[in-house]
Amino acid sequence: MSIRIAICAPATPITREQAQAVSALAAAEFPELELSFHEQCFAQEGHFAGPDTMRMSAFLECANDPGSDAVWFAKGGYGSNRILDPAIGSLNAHAGRKSFLGYSDCGFLLGALYRNGIGAPVHAPMPLDIKREGGEVAVGRSLAWLAGEGSGIEPDLGDGPVAAFNLTTLAMLAGTPFMPDLTGHVLIVEEVAEHLYAIDRLFFHLSPLLSTLAGLRLGEVTAVPENDRPFGQSIENIAKSWCRRAGVPYLGRAAIGHTASNRIVPFGLARTPHGA
Amino acid sequence: MSIRIAICAPATPITREQAQAVSALAAAEFPELELSFHEQCFAQEGHFAGPDTMRMSAFLECANDPGSDAVWFAKGGYGSNRILDPAIGSLNAHAGRKSFLGYSDCGFLLGALYRNGIGAPVHAPMPLDIKREGGEVAVGRSLAWLAGEGSGIEPDLGDGPVAAFNLTTLAMLAGTPFMPDLTGHVLIVEEVAEHLYAIDRLFFHLSPLLSTLAGLRLGEVTAVPENDRPFGQSIENIAKSWCRRAGVPYLGRAAIGHTASNRIVPFGLARTPHGA
Repeated sequence: MSIRIAICAPATPITREQAQAVSALAAAEFPELELSFHEQCFAQEGHFAGPDTMRMSAFLECANDPGSDAVWFAKGGYGSNRILDPAIGSLNAHAGRKSFLGYSDCGFLLGALYRNGIGAPVHAPMPLDIKREGGEVAVGRSLAWLAGEGSGIEPDLGDGPVAAFNLTTLAMLAGTPFMPDLTGHVLIVEEVAEHLYAIDRLFFHLSPLLSTLAGLRLGEVTAVPENDRPFGQSIENIAKSWCRRAGVPYLGRAAIGHTASNRIVPFGLARTPHGA
Repeated sequence: MSIRIAICAPATPITREQAQAVSALAAAEFPELELSFHEQCFAQEGHFAGPDTMRMSAFLECANDPGSDAVWFAKGGYGSNRILDPAIGSLNAHAGRKSFLGYSDCGFLLGALYRNGIGAPVHAPMPLDIKREGGEVAVGRSLAWLAGEGSGIEPDLGDGPVAAFNLTTLAMLAGTPFMPDLTGHVLIVEEVAEHLYAIDRLFFHLSPLLSTLAGLRLGEVTAVPENDRPFGQSIENIAKSWCRRAGVPYLGRAAIGHTASNRIVPFGLARTPHGA
């Protein structure tokens, strides 16, 4: 019996070629998966994969469809925050039994779903990752998860509740009506293309959250732009220093980030694929 | 009788040449002002004007000194947030009768002072602005204010309480123990060197705050980097759209920003220089 995966783009679009490459990979390696790229994945309006209304409709069609088993976000970029209201309030019982896979900007949706106890939010590679060097391995990790194989999971998740976010995305979600309660969680954060001073500032902003955690782990921090002068502290020392201030254990590095080695982190206590 | 101004750099350093140029301008046009640049203004450690402890000590020396009448922040950049705890809790009664002038990253301090009802926080040009084209006019606006002349004030502040912030600084302050209550205020925000999508995201983050305001005004938004594709919405339409979502009046443009036309905005109900 095939497992049906509905794919939409709540932020920015992918190309048809990228979708075809992902479909070909799935057909070759996971024939039990039936990928369905919503036409909205290829729409474009300004920065976004179509206007807010179109992106929200596509998300709701995918999530509320009784005929699909999971929702996979095609790409981040920016924009999934703009559809949270009213999308999150419009999800039905079918959405509640599905996994939702994505990362980066799509962390807005994962966080909002987690806050509302809807489905199984999973930090995981996206179809867009096919364009990276080694991207087939990254995308294959999500395909395997969707097919019910847990091999792509981040290897050190421990026993307690966990969550994984892009640091900027989490900072922008904090304090909004869509922010989940992460008390007692091990939080994993990653970042891309932000100055070290901006990362330091994001940790300052998240200090009230840090102090509620069981611990913090640091994913990859890549493509840091060069500043007019060096920051004077390594990224790991920045994380350690804000953990120290917040009185929360710094638990070391984690294998998530904007690279092909991005691993899977199911939110909460789950450690196996939903329904597996 | 001379008016004594204590100057420190809670974030990043200025040069001795910049300090001398500002002192020369003051001596020529406002001989009643006695500017005192704290030696810390010229310190450098990595990104910052000296380590956190040094910047905090300099700030407290300037603020708590019975011999000075106002505190002027030399430059923003990044870092004044890192000294809020424990600096804000260490201010004395002398600090409470002073004006504190600055903007950009120094909005962290202005906001924290305002939250705690300490002194008179004032969004105003800083000594570093001397390096801009037209910088003497900008710096002269703050010098005039410090000398008791109100001519540099933003011209449309109205009658209700107001506050002015760099948008990123405000977004990073929100939700921390240093965030002031801006309920019923007209809030003016400005931004520099941020992508339009990031500005849109900052407004999303601040939505809960927006809905408590009397209105929003938009200062200058300068040095917006080019993105890989156009955002598709003007900066003013971005601001209007988030105001609409929050149900708060958009009140048009304001004359603050990272340029020489940056005007003075005393926080709250003040419309004249402190003690004038």
